[in-house]
Amino acid sequence: MSLMRGYFHPKTATGRSSLIPSPPWHYSGDLLTIEYRTDPARVRELLPEPLEPAEEDPGAVALIWADWQSCSGSREELLDPVRSQYKEAFAVVRCSYRGRTYSRCVHIWVDKDFAIARGTHQGYPKKLGSIHMTRPHSYGPAPRLEAGARFGATLAAADRRLAQAVVTLRETSNTNGFVNGHPMAHHRWLPSIEKGEGLALDELIESGAASFEAGPAWRAEADLELFDSPTEELARLEIREPIAAYYRQVGVVWDGGTLLESGTSGAG
Amino acid sequence: MSLMRGYFHPKTATGRSSLIPSPPWHYSGDLLTIEYRTDPARVRELLPEPLEPAEEDPGAVALIWADWQSCSGSREELLDPVRSQYKEAFAVVRCSYRGRTYSRCVHIWVDKDFAIARGTHQGYPKKLGSIHMTRPHSYGPAPRLEAGARFGATLAAADRRLAQAVVTLRETSNTNGFVNGHPMAHHRWLPSIEKGEGLALDELIESGAASFEAGPAWRAEADLELFDSPTEELARLEIREPIAAYYRQVGVVWDGGTLLESGTSGAG
Amino acid sequence: MSLMRGYFHPKTATGRSSLIPSPPWHYSGDLLTIEYRTDPARVRELLPEPLEPAEEDPGAVALIWADWQSCSGSREELLDPVRSQYKEAFAVVRCSYRGRTYSRCVHIWVDKDFAIARGTHQGYPKKLGSIHMTRPHSYGPAPRLEAGARFGATLAAADRRLAQAVVTLRETSNTNGFVNGHPMAHHRWLPSIEKGEGLALDELIESGAASFEAGPAWRAEADLELFDSPTEELARLEIREPIAAYYRQVGVVWDGGTLLESGTSGAG
Amino acid sequence: MSLMRGYFHPKTATGRSSLIPSPPWHYSGDLLTIEYRTDPARVRELLPEPLEPAEEDPGAVALIWADWQSCSGSREELLDPVRSQYKEAFAVVRCSYRGRTYSRCVHIWVDKDFAIARGTHQGYPKKLGSIHMTRPHSYGPAPRLEAGARFGATLAAADRRLAQAVVTLRETSNTNGFVNGHPMAHHRWLPSIEKGEGLALDELIESGAASFEAGPAWRAEADLELFDSPTEELARLEIREPIAAYYRQVGVVWDGGTLLESGTSGAG
Repeated sequence: MSLMRGYFHPKTATGRSSLIPSPPWHYSGDLLTIEYRTDPARVRELLPEPLEPAEEDPGAVALIWADWQSCSGSREELLDPVRSQYKEAFAVVRCSYRGRTYSRCVHIWVDKDFAIARGTHQGYPKKLGSIHMTRPHSYGPAPRLEAGARFGATLAAADRRLAQAVVTLRETSNTNGFVNGHPMAHHRWLPSIEKGEGLALDELIESGAASFEAGPAWRAEADLELFDSPTEELARLEIREPIAAYYRQVGVVWDGGTLLESGTSGAG
Repeated sequence: MSLMRGYFHPKTATGRSSLIPSPPWHYSGDLLTIEYRTDPARVRELLPEPLEPAEEDPGAVALIWADWQSCSGSREELLDPVRSQYKEAFAVVRCSYRGRTYSRCVHIWVDKDFAIARGTHQGYPKKLGSIHMTRPHSYGPAPRLEAGARFGATLAAADRRLAQAVVTLRETSNTNGFVNGHPMAHHRWLPSIEKGEGLALDELIESGAASFEAGPAWRAEADLELFDSPTEELARLEIREPIAAYYRQVGVVWDGGTLLESGTSGAG
Repeated sequence: MSLMRGYFHPKTATGRSSLIPSPPWHYSGDLLTIEYRTDPARVRELLPEPLEPAEEDPGAVALIWADWQSCSGSREELLDPVRSQYKEAFAVVRCSYRGRTYSRCVHIWVDKDFAIARGTHQGYPKKLGSIHMTRPHSYGPAPRLEAGARFGATLAAADRRLAQAVVTLRETSNTNGFVNGHPMAHHRWLPSIEKGEGLALDELIESGAASFEAGPAWRAEADLELFDSPTEELARLEIREPIAAYYRQVGVVWDGGTLLESGTSGAG
Repeated sequence: MSLMRGYFHPKTATGRSSLIPSPPWHYSGDLLTIEYRTDPARVRELLPEPLEPAEEDPGAVALIWADWQSCSGSREELLDPVRSQYKEAFAVVRCSYRGRTYSRCVHIWVDKDFAIARGTHQGYPKKLGSIHMTRPHSYGPAPRLEAGARFGATLAAADRRLAQAVVTLRETSNTNGFVNGHPMAHHRWLPSIEKGEGLALDELIESGAASFEAGPAWRAEADLELFDSPTEELARLEIREPIAAYYRQVGVVWDGGTLLESGTSGAG
């Protein structure tokens, strides 16, 4: 009999083929966060049992763009950057579980397979997309991180643009927003391989950063547009009222989460 | 409380966002199959308990390229072909389970997210790759499906070429090969979200086509090369002896599988 | 001194690096053609001196999707299909030059660099795009080439969808349309490297197929939509009246063109 | 008659569709430069008449990776970053013309169409490639710009890796290298549309930055590998002896060049 190694598939005798390494996973990246209020009913309909809407500001949404370099503890992926660089855009709402407030990612697009695999593990509902963000730079026409600097951000999937934004930095800020500031409450769902048998995996898990460092957050003004698509529902989180926007450079470590409960979501 | 709809993530109130629809899934495609013998130990090391090597020809491998159009029962994806077309390349070996011979995919690369999601469901260990196959055509320089016609096939991942082949059709054949001809015995594995807790999902499942139609199989001669990569082990299934190659156009329906057993693989 | 070889850049001592080989160029492909009438003024504004609008039906436009495999006389590119396969979508109008009717491509998107290079040579104003077309297939859910069969076609550039169509085949046809049926009258323009010096290359050339073979043309009905974009003007050729649609499989050889005149376009 | 507007194709009545805007073009980016010596004969064979090898160190080569954001004078492309961001990798040698030393790009790969178009204008022999560079970052595992920091860089085209490097920063430097430090002497070549008629455009042009700003250059040590390919000759510039490596952040403006002479290259 053979021992299969590797944190993820494909498992092999050496473990070398695994699409993702064992945690901890290390990240360097830039986050552009746009917070706004939508109809709270549109948030509530994305919260399966036993999750409930957040008590305060239940219609708050954060749409976040991130430009990442990520790696294992060995950091070897950084030196073959096709294996470490990726971008993502994702929508976060808040919810309440056993009296505690959580963040929850309800839509997310990434541009690499290893990022999809980490999402399968962490309960992020990832699809492939095409994500772009202006990057700050110290020379030439690209913006510096300073008041008045302007950054663009766009998202497309299946050859349709889903979102675009322009943000203008105003001043440094004590906060990077409140919607994505809680531990994440995510479901890990997988249908049974047998037809009509419901879910084979139905876990509610909690997850968050094991460590975090960051530069100053910049408060910004945002001009955000969402576009409909036959296969996407990001635009269903329609923009009723802007809250704020932020730009921040961060370093993050992720090192596992906690199983909250299993088999209770009632999801179809 | 909200009912979450959608066969796969992201689940929503409408189900419209689901990355993949409910089965049955329908496929039209061209298959280029190259069978060869490797060291049987290299196959055995990819078979976790309780799988055992096939009794006959345990070192047989099939490396298969496929150019697909797939859709749900509604067939609507065919009319927005970015949502239906994808290509894949995959390595199949055989194994024995409870006295029956199964096929098993041990490495696979695809070029769309919906194909990755179906692999997560069906136990195919999918990564993203860049896959190309010559397509038969009735006019101009591209090959017809006829004796002497030559087809190329290539596979790359993470900007490295992993395999390339040229096959030459010889004559129609009663078989399309024997390595990928059995039901698939696949594992569906997902690590626990909690560090050090092993697998949260560890299922051995059986799966195969619910229905199948096909044109004539063509027997071919193949010239196949495999290339090493720091993160891939396809080339570890080194080519010791060619067996045969085949080209065939097929229509397939997939409609679920069977759970064989759970929690027994001992995989790390 | 060194002799530089290669039909195109980069020229080297061997010529092996040339992005495109010497003509003749051979093509196998499927063409989906949608003809409609737009405001003739929108066509006229795309015709520089000395071109004039076509005398009959001057507002006719053909929007064409093509799924190609192309190669040099050696046909070697067919066996490394990443070097031969590409797709394109392009808009064609007609014009008159010295009393003769020509076709003229006014917008075109392709998905490979060798196709861009051929366009630089042939006067096709190529950009990169993402192009998809349903492919006919003999098995499974994809359409056969038969009455009632439905094909989708889409075009995107810079992460925005620019056009999408669904066509339904009705019956075989004696024609594959009239808009793209003439020799092409194209300009080859390149600005002077010196600022403010106008054009360094300003040629009006004629080009067409050196040989052509094809299967039956299918007449079809089309449902076509065009979408605006900040950097594209395809939608400016607005759809006033549908004419017809066609589907045809073809083989084509291209082997050079003719210089009509030089330095006369008055283009800025 | 119609006035065609737009700096590049497709020219239209508005000029809005032009693949590239009028100069000046503004750039912000990071440059990773690796200089080494190859066989001087391999450089000489890439220098058409009337160019001659550089008098000193004629075998010197610079292989350069660049991660750019570029825009027109309006800077609007920066806010839709799919239109401004691109990466490139290119090989530069030196040559002598009328007693003056020039730099000359002999191979180059980029990942956007607007970058290809600018190369057609500036005489860079561009192909599409997949280019990756580690990016410096102030937080998390990605390297800071400091002694000991390590950066990876890779290049692939047509699904084959062509080059990869790891560089380690050592200290700030008064120079960013000498191979790419001269004005560029490039040819703008286009074959005649008529078969067998040689070149329709055969210009030797000079071009360089209209303005330049930069942060400190870092001297680095490099580990560079080149890989062969059937269609590329970068590896023909084989590495005989390392010279040095550099990392620098720059801002550049390009605003046209000078025609040196025309019709003299003797290129085929």
